[in-house]
Amino acid sequence: MIPHDTHLRIGSLLFEGIDQIDLTGPFEVLSRIPNATYRIYAKSAAPVRDLNGLWLTPDASLADAPPLDVLHVPGGFGQEALMEDTEVLGWIRQQASGACHIFSVCTGALLCGAAGLLKGRRATTHWASLHLLRFFGAIPVNERVVIDGAWVFAAGVTAGIDGALRLAAELRGDESAQAIQLQMVYAPEPPFHSGTPETAPPAILRQERQSLRAITARREETAGRVAAKLGITVPVTIGD
Amino acid sequence: MIPHDTHLRIGSLLFEGIDQIDLTGPFEVLSRIPNATYRIYAKSAAPVRDLNGLWLTPDASLADAPPLDVLHVPGGFGQEALMEDTEVLGWIRQQASGACHIFSVCTGALLCGAAGLLKGRRATTHWASLHLLRFFGAIPVNERVVIDGAWVFAAGVTAGIDGALRLAAELRGDESAQAIQLQMVYAPEPPFHSGTPETAPPAILRQERQSLRAITARREETAGRVAAKLGITVPVTIGD
Repeated sequence: MIPHDTHLRIGSLLFEGIDQIDLTGPFEVLSRIPNATYRIYAKSAAPVRDLNGLWLTPDASLADAPPLDVLHVPGGFGQEALMEDTEVLGWIRQQASGACHIFSVCTGALLCGAAGLLKGRRATTHWASLHLLRFFGAIPVNERVVIDGAWVFAAGVTAGIDGALRLAAELRGDESAQAIQLQMVYAPEPPFHSGTPETAPPAILRQERQSLRAITARREETAGRVAAKLGITVPVTIGD
Repeated sequence: MIPHDTHLRIGSLLFEGIDQIDLTGPFEVLSRIPNATYRIYAKSAAPVRDLNGLWLTPDASLADAPPLDVLHVPGGFGQEALMEDTEVLGWIRQQASGACHIFSVCTGALLCGAAGLLKGRRATTHWASLHLLRFFGAIPVNERVVIDGAWVFAAGVTAGIDGALRLAAELRGDESAQAIQLQMVYAPEPPFHSGTPETAPPAILRQERQSLRAITARREETAGRVAAKLGITVPVTIGD
């Protein structure tokens, strides 16, 4: 627990093919945390595109990042291309070793896993990748936000907003997080109950599983290779 | 009502000092609408910063935008600087005249009002600016999402996500919006009940009103000038 009067350095990882709201949802919270400097870091300082085409620009390159107190690792299809990227995984590992909190959103958890950081840890990620956490030695938990020691895991995509508010409360106390929630007018009213596999209409869930089949297959293959490198034996049969 | 098999051109307005999630929340929905081209437009094609420093880059300038079927007008403190900007207001007016839907988020409603588009319309905006809607001849409605004919209004900040899903359902039907909701894993679990003035702890609400006092005063002054230009007599005393 860092004292509230200690200045925090907070940093997000940005990469090509990120799901933008994995970054921009938490941004709305993290940029409002009192007495903190929040910056976005990528392999180079050049703009990148999110998986649906939004241009996002980092504040600096990974090499120029100071040691961070809070590390935020988002996800999105582009995470897959970084699963064996020694520069990015090394940066995550090094930053995580000095951070007081690590905040993973969506398939950012797979990157943290590939960095070897999830062994024995209770974790969550996007529902379509939840089974993959075992490849990295983690214990999958089907909840929207999972807190395990210094780690905050948010499940898929927009769960990053809920996770970031939980993180803000951990860092600066409930009242600070409540003030940020009011600033964001975060009192959601989803028009349907279709946000999870458990509540979505079955036909829509089938269609979404189908559209994720190719990326999930690639992720399974990569996770298998990474597990072998990490010396992890995956105990169960993988389904989808 | 546009047939589902008609291609849609969807465009968002971007400007310096936007509240980024007014754009990026809806982006997550609008970029997934089937059979549509979605682009972001700003006064020039140069990157701009959101009110907390996020760099955002438009796809093209306002002048290069085609006639849009769906116009999205976000808000944020930077809206105030555009309230008498003839180029931006003229663009909003022109695009709105040909669009089948206009989607206002947060204080984007004040821009639409300054463009003279809200006379007699039921509308909503950020709670701290709700009373200002009368300056533009609109009828303020204290709801998170208000639909009035071709118009979809979302209240403050993250309400844009709920508004965009409602808009997706209007454009492409409930099932399409439900599929997008599942893709976004939008089943929010806010950790506190602090997202509205009605539910936030009173001390936090007082503090937030205080921090918005200066911008609200500027907005009231500007709205008075704009109302005079529009020939609107504001019927009530303005409180905060």
